[in-house]
Amino acid sequence: MNYFVIDEIIIGALKEDIPNEDITTNSVIDIDSRCTVDLFSKDQGVIAGLDVFKRVFILIGDVNVEFYKKEGDFVQSKTLIAKLTGNTRAILKGERTALNLLQRMSGIATITKCYVDKIKDTNAKLLDTRKTTPGLRILEKYAVTVGGSQNHRFNLSDGIMLKDNHISAAGGIKKAVEAARKNCSFVRRIEVEAETIEMVKEALEAKADIIMLDNMDTDNMRKAVGIINGRAITEASGNVSLETIGAIAKTGVDYISCGALTHSAKTLDLSMKNLKLMK
Amino acid sequence: MNYFVIDEIIIGALKEDIPNEDITTNSVIDIDSRCTVDLFSKDQGVIAGLDVFKRVFILIGDVNVEFYKKEGDFVQSKTLIAKLTGNTRAILKGERTALNLLQRMSGIATITKCYVDKIKDTNAKLLDTRKTTPGLRILEKYAVTVGGSQNHRFNLSDGIMLKDNHISAAGGIKKAVEAARKNCSFVRRIEVEAETIEMVKEALEAKADIIMLDNMDTDNMRKAVGIINGRAITEASGNVSLETIGAIAKTGVDYISCGALTHSAKTLDLSMKNLKLMK
Amino acid sequence: MNYFVIDEIIIGALKEDIPNEDITTNSVIDIDSRCTVDLFSKDQGVIAGLDVFKRVFILIGDVNVEFYKKEGDFVQSKTLIAKLTGNTRAILKGERTALNLLQRMSGIATITKCYVDKIKDTNAKLLDTRKTTPGLRILEKYAVTVGGSQNHRFNLSDGIMLKDNHISAAGGIKKAVEAARKNCSFVRRIEVEAETIEMVKEALEAKADIIMLDNMDTDNMRKAVGIINGRAITEASGNVSLETIGAIAKTGVDYISCGALTHSAKTLDLSMKNLKLMK
Amino acid sequence: MNYFVIDEIIIGALKEDIPNEDITTNSVIDIDSRCTVDLFSKDQGVIAGLDVFKRVFILIGDVNVEFYKKEGDFVQSKTLIAKLTGNTRAILKGERTALNLLQRMSGIATITKCYVDKIKDTNAKLLDTRKTTPGLRILEKYAVTVGGSQNHRFNLSDGIMLKDNHISAAGGIKKAVEAARKNCSFVRRIEVEAETIEMVKEALEAKADIIMLDNMDTDNMRKAVGIINGRAITEASGNVSLETIGAIAKTGVDYISCGALTHSAKTLDLSMKNLKLMK
Amino acid sequence: MNYFVIDEIIIGALKEDIPNEDITTNSVIDIDSRCTVDLFSKDQGVIAGLDVFKRVFILIGDVNVEFYKKEGDFVQSKTLIAKLTGNTRAILKGERTALNLLQRMSGIATITKCYVDKIKDTNAKLLDTRKTTPGLRILEKYAVTVGGSQNHRFNLSDGIMLKDNHISAAGGIKKAVEAARKNCSFVRRIEVEAETIEMVKEALEAKADIIMLDNMDTDNMRKAVGIINGRAITEASGNVSLETIGAIAKTGVDYISCGALTHSAKTLDLSMKNLKLMK
Amino acid sequence: MNYFVIDEIIIGALKEDIPNEDITTNSVIDIDSRCTVDLFSKDQGVIAGLDVFKRVFILIGDVNVEFYKKEGDFVQSKTLIAKLTGNTRAILKGERTALNLLQRMSGIATITKCYVDKIKDTNAKLLDTRKTTPGLRILEKYAVTVGGSQNHRFNLSDGIMLKDNHISAAGGIKKAVEAARKNCSFVRRIEVEAETIEMVKEALEAKADIIMLDNMDTDNMRKAVGIINGRAITEASGNVSLETIGAIAKTGVDYISCGALTHSAKTLDLSMKNLKLMK
Repeated sequence: MNYFVIDEIIIGALKEDIPNEDITTNSVIDIDSRCTVDLFSKDQGVIAGLDVFKRVFILIGDVNVEFYKKEGDFVQSKTLIAKLTGNTRAILKGERTALNLLQRMSGIATITKCYVDKIKDTNAKLLDTRKTTPGLRILEKYAVTVGGSQNHRFNLSDGIMLKDNHISAAGGIKKAVEAARKNCSFVRRIEVEAETIEMVKEALEAKADIIMLDNMDTDNMRKAVGIINGRAITEASGNVSLETIGAIAKTGVDYISCGALTHSAKTLDLSMKNLKLMK
Repeated sequence: MNYFVIDEIIIGALKEDIPNEDITTNSVIDIDSRCTVDLFSKDQGVIAGLDVFKRVFILIGDVNVEFYKKEGDFVQSKTLIAKLTGNTRAILKGERTALNLLQRMSGIATITKCYVDKIKDTNAKLLDTRKTTPGLRILEKYAVTVGGSQNHRFNLSDGIMLKDNHISAAGGIKKAVEAARKNCSFVRRIEVEAETIEMVKEALEAKADIIMLDNMDTDNMRKAVGIINGRAITEASGNVSLETIGAIAKTGVDYISCGALTHSAKTLDLSMKNLKLMK
Repeated sequence: MNYFVIDEIIIGALKEDIPNEDITTNSVIDIDSRCTVDLFSKDQGVIAGLDVFKRVFILIGDVNVEFYKKEGDFVQSKTLIAKLTGNTRAILKGERTALNLLQRMSGIATITKCYVDKIKDTNAKLLDTRKTTPGLRILEKYAVTVGGSQNHRFNLSDGIMLKDNHISAAGGIKKAVEAARKNCSFVRRIEVEAETIEMVKEALEAKADIIMLDNMDTDNMRKAVGIINGRAITEASGNVSLETIGAIAKTGVDYISCGALTHSAKTLDLSMKNLKLMK
Repeated sequence: MNYFVIDEIIIGALKEDIPNEDITTNSVIDIDSRCTVDLFSKDQGVIAGLDVFKRVFILIGDVNVEFYKKEGDFVQSKTLIAKLTGNTRAILKGERTALNLLQRMSGIATITKCYVDKIKDTNAKLLDTRKTTPGLRILEKYAVTVGGSQNHRFNLSDGIMLKDNHISAAGGIKKAVEAARKNCSFVRRIEVEAETIEMVKEALEAKADIIMLDNMDTDNMRKAVGIINGRAITEASGNVSLETIGAIAKTGVDYISCGALTHSAKTLDLSMKNLKLMK
Repeated sequence: MNYFVIDEIIIGALKEDIPNEDITTNSVIDIDSRCTVDLFSKDQGVIAGLDVFKRVFILIGDVNVEFYKKEGDFVQSKTLIAKLTGNTRAILKGERTALNLLQRMSGIATITKCYVDKIKDTNAKLLDTRKTTPGLRILEKYAVTVGGSQNHRFNLSDGIMLKDNHISAAGGIKKAVEAARKNCSFVRRIEVEAETIEMVKEALEAKADIIMLDNMDTDNMRKAVGIINGRAITEASGNVSLETIGAIAKTGVDYISCGALTHSAKTLDLSMKNLKLMK
Repeated sequence: MNYFVIDEIIIGALKEDIPNEDITTNSVIDIDSRCTVDLFSKDQGVIAGLDVFKRVFILIGDVNVEFYKKEGDFVQSKTLIAKLTGNTRAILKGERTALNLLQRMSGIATITKCYVDKIKDTNAKLLDTRKTTPGLRILEKYAVTVGGSQNHRFNLSDGIMLKDNHISAAGGIKKAVEAARKNCSFVRRIEVEAETIEMVKEALEAKADIIMLDNMDTDNMRKAVGIINGRAITEASGNVSLETIGAIAKTGVDYISCGALTHSAKTLDLSMKNLKLMK
């Protein structure tokens, strides 16, 4: 994690939650009070974001965090994850922000692992999408990798994907691929979205590097994989759920992308408990 | 919506998705190309965030958005929500960012309405929490109101809530409430978290304005409501789900707060389709 | 003080005073020069902002500040408040910015104490307003508390006050209060501005939590307090000066708010003297 | 006024006053409500900051401001200064921020004019200092000019002033001036602070461009002016008040600088009244 | 050009050049003065950045820019490029910032065209590098394309290049490529830096997508191209100058990257002349 | 160097080069890997920016930089300038950004020294201009001083220069100077641009402090210097190159300003080599 990138996210979150002061804490907790508190899981899942969690308290200051679990560990409910020691006001101020970040990242890692497990006996690999929470993409794309998935392109500036709109505007797949090859950096692979077998063939002829099989049923997908036959990388997309991903993977596609990893993950339930004042 | 607040969120989201240029669009779409495109729902739910959606395109420039549904409408799947007309590059650049915001806000409004519907025949009112996405609280707290809920405090600076940690550090409920009353602005009500009937009584004696019944079973909750008997506002919290909220409401509590409204809402499936180039 | 909030203010102030370099200091002071210097009061008053003063030098770096007085102390003229030790250039660069902040905050604390002293034998408590210096509200609202006052609401997002304009637009006090109660978070108390005894009665009927007696003479104020009779909190506002506040307090109002605490406070005269180079 | 500079100040002030929403206004005023409202003076003084006042409402949007007085006008109490027409919510949201800026700037212009009037029959000219409100220097230095004063240097990067600390660190006035002349840009004049006649002579010998007569009594000041005899510009500083400035000016100094213009100005009392909803 | 990206650059540049006010212009030019002025070339070259030039004046406001040349045009000395009409103060304030940007971008486009011309009869294509001016990469990478070059990767987050340091740390080319393929997004091509024929062979075996021939002489380069024989894309790098690029291109490499395009381009001499006040 | 100013530049540059992660380094270098690496010159020149170079790594963290040369040293090619020790990922992440800054600053210092050397036996002193890279002026103006030049004004807010446009708009030199003297701070010297002997005389009569001899041939320049005869400071400007500066200096002008120092400097070739992993 590059702190010159994530500090801005964390400080923004702290200011959102404490624009002025934590009025409750400041009114009842002594300024010099010190305590310890435990971070526990209340559900089972994959932990992601420990570094971000700790960074919240480094930026607030005067809190030490010791971890008992490490990034990517699958924890059961009621597991001790960390112990915090430090200024009581500082710990209480950072609690919600640190938890909001860690719970969200862990929730994404957890659901990602569920998807990955469904396809672990196939050759298909899981991918995320750009359907991330505005402002948190860097954390969410990272959490996805902790859960065992790979990342698709990060943003519109670093990957080429020719969707139906681009194709129709360009006058067909061939022309669209040519335009992309001519105008985009040679370090990028060109991906084409294909909804039919016909489009798959056109994409192959146009020498697309990656062909996305979009919203196809598994029969067509299998057929498309056969036609492509290794001449392009294949990515399945659309209607990917925990119920469907196993069958999709068995069609032989190389990758399966799934927006739900980031746009609809439930957070992992965690909480800070057992606050004990130090004498 | 105050644009001096939300513009920063939107511009941050646009820069996250397009740090330099949309390389695909710029390589295949003519700079002067114009088109129309439709925004459709692909699932049913409550629409929230139309103003934010439109603002994305105002900030990019050269796109007009006409709405066919209004904020808070419950739409069925395959409903036309808006029609966009303008520069094709501008529309394609803003598509993902605008959808990511609108889908998330609508997802929150939709799940909120589900919870509200469960308690509509009771006197209980629904509340959100501070378990929001870092950076997006203002949009998520707003979406919750579109779905029919009320907002709890916005942040640590604008509401007083004495939790177990505050109470033990202060040496009991009575001392904690006194400290809060002495040090906090008189415009704020004082809320005390109570986990037992005993604590409810202490909070009452301390003249807490609001008593949160935290993680109580419904029997204890009902008993607490009876003891309080209107002398404080009551809020139920903990283990609130679509399954449990009905029974909780029937205990007679005034408010029920639920973190899941914001921390685990599924996004509402929406998409932009039927792009047609204009001659 | 949350440094993630005030650092932005301090760094902004430093950049305003030194957009490039301190050309005088850099041209005549050796880069490695070290010195000590004393911070003295040149007038009597209440010291507020020591933490902010010190933070200026922490952000510049290489300066140690040792205090001889503590926050809230009332100091006489010519009192030694602090001794700074460190890099000479660093001390000279931060001098004006640190003093501008400390003098302003101490000036506010000082005038606040004057007001508080006038009403110390009554039950009335002093309040500030939103008439603060744009950009410095958090520091000024804090300084007011150091001087012995309480804070009114912090901003338009965290307190409800129905003024004449809101009332007339809503169609009367009753409707305005109802609208506020329906639409605003239940953690907030509702305050209504009343200019006449008639309006006080309406506010009482509408069950306003707080009634502001605005620009009333002390006779009417006393009458209003009698009518309200503890059923709402009372706040006097308008024409509050050191001359009038004593009489206002004696009307029996609970609170008296005064804009002059922040909008017209004279700064407290302080200066850094006795710079001695260290060998 | 350069909007690329002041917009940041105004937006910062708006966010400080409305971090989320104006909860009172939004709960009782209809979103489409329109109104007119008048800006009146409640005291007499010099108006400064009309452009900033108007800019607040331009940045919020949907409010028109028509002025009846112009920048620098001296107005009596109860004078109509402007009429605002537009969206009611927008006007109420911007009211406090716009007034806080205009009142502060007008207060500075007003006190400045008082000082200027005291020396209008002499050759001395008034100057401000760097004792401004952190974050608002550009507005305050501008307000000072509206009141009739000139500006001293803007910050530590754009003017050279050798104070006692610099002089002692450099080993005397002569060495300090030489160092400054060698290291600073030739576009800047070199000012030396002199507290005694002896120091004035040294500064003259060192060919200082400007000699500040710091905390001298008027006898010594007159003597210093005689010795300098036009070979350097003279500036009086220290203990400048409305009581003393007349006598100081008569010593023949060229300039008199006064920190009180900005650090202790009372705001000018203004208010927005007569809000009338439009049908 | 995405304004949500470049506006920040332009406003930063304006604040750097005018932190407060343009004191010269404001003191001698009337606030309502209007004028026309011409933008001329004083040297020959390729124009790049017209959109940025115009945007400077849009952000300042009240200036219209009409162009007589278009982006990418090769102009002779003394060519009229644009005519500006508007507020005189606005034009004079923006002049230097707008010129600094346009001259730099045009200088880069001009030198780029010189390089491109040297290889136009070969199959090699020109590339830029990351040796750009900190803060201006987006403008400089764009200017390079106006001059006829393609862009290499934009930053460390969007392209994979295994340099000698990565290779030795990973334990050889094979292991480095495997690690990159395993950990990086599949949308990216993997580039390997090879300094010897031996390394070229290893890179081929490891199935690198792109092989950079780094600091090879042209004999070895030709040999490497022969060995690779189309199985990877080739990029020549190191010691690329106007003198050497022709010979490098003739070795048959696909791409030639050149840092000098951005790190050492001379600006194109342009100036604004013939200011005429309008009556 | 004030870190509160330059940190923003450095962090901006780091985010530009690594918006998310250094994908290559993270995929092949172990997170705990440590190494040493050397910074060498590959060309001869003046080193400027060591402090900025080091600050890049301080902001990234976990890298120590030890210098073998000091600011302003003239180094030969292949000289060891620094040795870095620390986390391998951190060093590789910061390499390009740190080099881009150091190379650019050293390039400016180097060309500046070339110009200074040409006039070292005359009384003329070299000056820079405002033709700097947008966003980097503070670093470039500093680099110029390392090379031995002085700085002209820093920006439009801190120096007065009456150019032809100002003069014609004001109705002549006399009126322009009077307006500037009346409206600008007395700490600033007034400079007038003169293109002819006639204008020089007018500027002298108007008591300009500095007269810029703009685009004059050396004969006229010498003549102008004679006429001025010490009554104003003289600055030569226009067509200043390494070929012409010697002759210009011999005309007796006090200063010579040269835009090429900053707008067209070649960067100094430096590189980080000999990375050795530590056991």
